Amino acid sequence: MYDLLIQRVDVLQIANGAPVILPQHDIAIAGQRIVAIAPAISAGLARETLDGAGQLAIPGLINSHAHIAMSLFRGVAEDVPIEEWFNGFIWPLETNLTPEDVYWGALLGIAEMIEAGVTCVADHYFAADAIAQAVQESGMRALLAWTLFSGADEHDQLARARQFTEQWHGAAGDRIRVWMGPHAPYTCTPSFLRRVGQTARELGVGIHIHLAETAGQVAQSMAAHGQSPVQLVRDTGLFEVPAIAAHVAHVAPEDIATLAAHGVAVAVTPKTEMKLGIGVAPVTAMRAAGVTVAIGSDGAASNNTYDVLESARLLALLEKLRNSDARALPIGATLELATTAGARALRWDDIGVLQVGARADLALVHCATAHTQPLHDPAAALLYSSQPADVSTVIIDGRIVMRDRVLLTIDKSRVLREVTARIERLTQRQTEQRMAVYPELAAGE
Amino acid sequence: MYDLLIQRVDVLQIANGAPVILPQHDIAIAGQRIVAIAPAISAGLARETLDGAGQLAIPGLINSHAHIAMSLFRGVAEDVPIEEWFNGFIWPLETNLTPEDVYWGALLGIAEMIEAGVTCVADHYFAADAIAQAVQESGMRALLAWTLFSGADEHDQLARARQFTEQWHGAAGDRIRVWMGPHAPYTCTPSFLRRVGQTARELGVGIHIHLAETAGQVAQSMAAHGQSPVQLVRDTGLFEVPAIAAHVAHVAPEDIATLAAHGVAVAVTPKTEMKLGIGVAPVTAMRAAGVTVAIGSDGAASNNTYDVLESARLLALLEKLRNSDARALPIGATLELATTAGARALRWDDIGVLQVGARADLALVHCATAHTQPLHDPAAALLYSSQPADVSTVIIDGRIVMRDRVLLTIDKSRVLREVTARIERLTQRQTEQRMAVYPELAAGE
Repeated sequence: MYDLLIQRVDVLQIANGAPVILPQHDIAIAGQRIVAIAPAISAGLARETLDGAGQLAIPGLINSHAHIAMSLFRGVAEDVPIEEWFNGFIWPLETNLTPEDVYWGALLGIAEMIEAGVTCVADHYFAADAIAQAVQESGMRALLAWTLFSGADEHDQLARARQFTEQWHGAAGDRIRVWMGPHAPYTCTPSFLRRVGQTARELGVGIHIHLAETAGQVAQSMAAHGQSPVQLVRDTGLFEVPAIAAHVAHVAPEDIATLAAHGVAVAVTPKTEMKLGIGVAPVTAMRAAGVTVAIGSDGAASNNTYDVLESARLLALLEKLRNSDARALPIGATLELATTAGARALRWDDIGVLQVGARADLALVHCATAHTQPLHDPAAALLYSSQPADVSTVIIDGRIVMRDRVLLTIDKSRVLREVTARIERLTQRQTEQRMAVYPELAAGE
Repeated sequence: MYDLLIQRVDVLQIANGAPVILPQHDIAIAGQRIVAIAPAISAGLARETLDGAGQLAIPGLINSHAHIAMSLFRGVAEDVPIEEWFNGFIWPLETNLTPEDVYWGALLGIAEMIEAGVTCVADHYFAADAIAQAVQESGMRALLAWTLFSGADEHDQLARARQFTEQWHGAAGDRIRVWMGPHAPYTCTPSFLRRVGQTARELGVGIHIHLAETAGQVAQSMAAHGQSPVQLVRDTGLFEVPAIAAHVAHVAPEDIATLAAHGVAVAVTPKTEMKLGIGVAPVTAMRAAGVTVAIGSDGAASNNTYDVLESARLLALLEKLRNSDARALPIGATLELATTAGARALRWDDIGVLQVGARADLALVHCATAHTQPLHDPAAALLYSSQPADVSTVIIDGRIVMRDRVLLTIDKSRVLREVTARIERLTQRQTEQRMAVYPELAAGE
């Protein structure tokens, strides 16, 4: 018996970097997994059927770096440089957040992601237990990290992160996993990073960190430590465990070699990196060196959306421009950033593909639209023409979480009401209170 | 009496480059024009009312460079360099097109544009009379140019363009205007360009041309003519009439000065220019020199959509990255590219703004979505968070052409059927037949 049978859908697979469409196939799901993909599977064996005609079934998209609850701050800090963005807006505003705010912000961000076909997210934030609650209830899949900063309370932070890991790692039928989340080498001392890495090793989990976001950070690291951020972090032992490094825009060839040698995955968030004008990782060189490059949205306070396909599209366009080569980051490789490479970055083996045995994380995308027709190339339509609203139905871990654009696990009206009710309080700027301080950087970085 | 009253809508205006929101205002329309914008206009004076609560009213977007009917070739030539794109795909495939194909392709592209809030387009294509027919029927606003190439039939082409201009310039209550469309200095000889310019002067119309798209074209122009494409075209007299130059990615400072001195508007189409890896116009320098920079989609065979806001967003993100400055192309200035600057480029005085006296070209955009809430900054939400599907209602020249996502002037099902029926014939590649030949360019350009 199957729990769910999706019928007559065009199935997108990616083989050796090239998109392949299995036309008019059925996808059978039992429990949390895909158990058959073939034409004309008998519907008599299925408890429930979904008509996929005229739609494209795609692997659920994987967002490799986000701050989901920053949906609350979408649009508060526009057209400002990174120092002002952090010190003038984000870090003061975040001191207003209660765990309950983070919970509602997370539900809002998860709602947006599901509506955009995103089924798994690597998140990095504080009050991560509130986020875990939202993930559990919404049916989302997530790799959570509780953000850690150096400070007088390092010991307490580590204890809390340890407790959070013990409570949530593997929870909700393994839909929720936990890694450690040291913020960045410019907000964590090397000795703190060392202790975080040791804790991660003890707990058997990975780490998720911001790294080499700006040229100024690299210059500052060289001045303070005589090492690039990548080399500095490597020396703290953090790369001895599975690691996602976000941004990594400014690297020397030896940094790329280090990332490759240690299997560190790079989560590029091109919309943030372009919007803040800080630079975008040299992904062609990184991929050539064997680094796993995945795609992330970052938070909505810099990206303004959680639309992972938009970010993938941006990166492909930018790589073509920067390399003066229309063949750079072709469609198949770009879609891999948001699917198989995302799974590899998160060390989550059985997601990111539509194959028998994989977790049933997928989205159905409408293709009979004025902006995608005629459908000469479904994969091109998905990457270069579709919009999130074309996603009709989303399944995570075998469960339908959105059907015909209706969210089934999140009360969106309530979420919007709760968020709206919080706006005024959340946007009080108390610049004398900050989560952390972004260091003043040398001019001209 | 008003013909239409839009009630309780948040009105987006742009004053001195900065977005301004008039909250909960009414917009009164009589005939083709906006006649009042104020809070609480009496509904008793209106034949028809539209509830705009929770929506943002924006000026109809202006697409300053498109090949609408290339919707038919969306996705046929992906991840290929420009020479192969032209010679291997587009120009062979275009020989398959009949005027009827162009008509249906134009209706498809117009449907997509209306669904994305685009109310005016500067088009450049052959069989432009079929496009004019589609524009007339759909209620779209357009500035049309019939593409001209040098060749044995130059005389006939000019005669046809003249006849087309006489028939359609000012048609449909001035919703349709016509300029001359010499393709480019690499497909038109200087003497032909001179004749085109003379014809434009005689007819009292402007010209729309492709210019300096690649570094190779500039090198080739220098080698063949001892002049850059911009200087070459200026010497043919084409800039003595109103002019839109598309792309203009590769220019020297003196070229920018020439464009500014002659009031030539530059239509940047960043998605095409990035996707083909050919380079993007230095818009910050151009704007600083006083050049009108507007935004275009280009054709769907390179852009894959007619989503003007996506193109504007791309350009803003790219300018911030290239200038290492998050303040480059701020939100207000970016929205101007797609509105007031578009109107200036097309020399169409009374569109692109929501003001009393302007043509009633506007779109209503839903803002109560998971991806735009909370609405800290409506202009930021529009540019950086919204998607075309958020556009609910579109009005062109006072006429509602889309209401609650339903197109009222285009039978979309029929258009999709007609287009689908044509796919097989249209994608026969006869590479021995081409519309023109893109010259082989020096390697490494």
